[in-house]
Amino acid sequence: MSKQGDALGRHVLADLHDAPSEVLGDPVAIENALLRAAHAAGATPLFSRFHHFGPGQGVTGVLLLQESHISIHTWPEHGFAALDAFMCGGCRPRDAVEIVVSALGARRVELREERRGEGVLDLLRHF
Amino acid sequence: MSKQGDALGRHVLADLHDAPSEVLGDPVAIENALLRAAHAAGATPLFSRFHHFGPGQGVTGVLLLQESHISIHTWPEHGFAALDAFMCGGCRPRDAVEIVVSALGARRVELREERRGEGVLDLLRHF
Repeated sequence: MSKQGDALGRHVLADLHDAPSEVLGDPVAIENALLRAAHAAGATPLFSRFHHFGPGQGVTGVLLLQESHISIHTWPEHGFAALDAFMCGGCRPRDAVEIVVSALGARRVELREERRGEGVLDLLRHF
Repeated sequence: MSKQGDALGRHVLADLHDAPSEVLGDPVAIENALLRAAHAAGATPLFSRFHHFGPGQGVTGVLLLQESHISIHTWPEHGFAALDAFMCGGCRPRDAVEIVVSALGARRVELREERRGEGVLDLLRHF
């Protein structure tokens, strides 16, 4: 079995740099981007909530998924957004990240991928 | 300035193992634990949403914070929960994790801490 199959899910953390402040302060554009991202990843949205801190300020939001979540927090004043896409099953969190990076126009991205629930399924196979 | 001061936030990922399935399937107990965790970390809740997939099944939920978020996804059938606490400013995400670990009765925890938005504040200091 592949290593990927031994974890319950994959959690991709993406730091998006050098994005235009207008988009980073637009909760509707951000929510639409995350919804498109979920679909691109093969995930099913359950619920979304996006909060705008005010004109010129950041947005904080989450899309709960049948398969976990996508969250985002933006700092327009720094051209920065912290995105995370956590998905279990056969979903493709990196595809979700790619959609959001493109929608927000980030010019530099730092990606980290963490495996969640490693060994949990493995243990079950011994019983 | 300390290394910690160079990042916009700290994101703690905690994999909780060997927790009783009753608690992992109780959305009210989980929401209460996350609210207590936010307060213990010095964070301010903005909004919460917790979804229960059904009797004997897991809970998926999020607490949006003024300072980012705490999310949780549980698998009662595996005695497992994936928790993440992302907080900017002077909040203490590890204190939040400690509260949830205790409330859920997890007997083994794997912790990872990621720094988010590293260098963003640093760059600004050069202008």
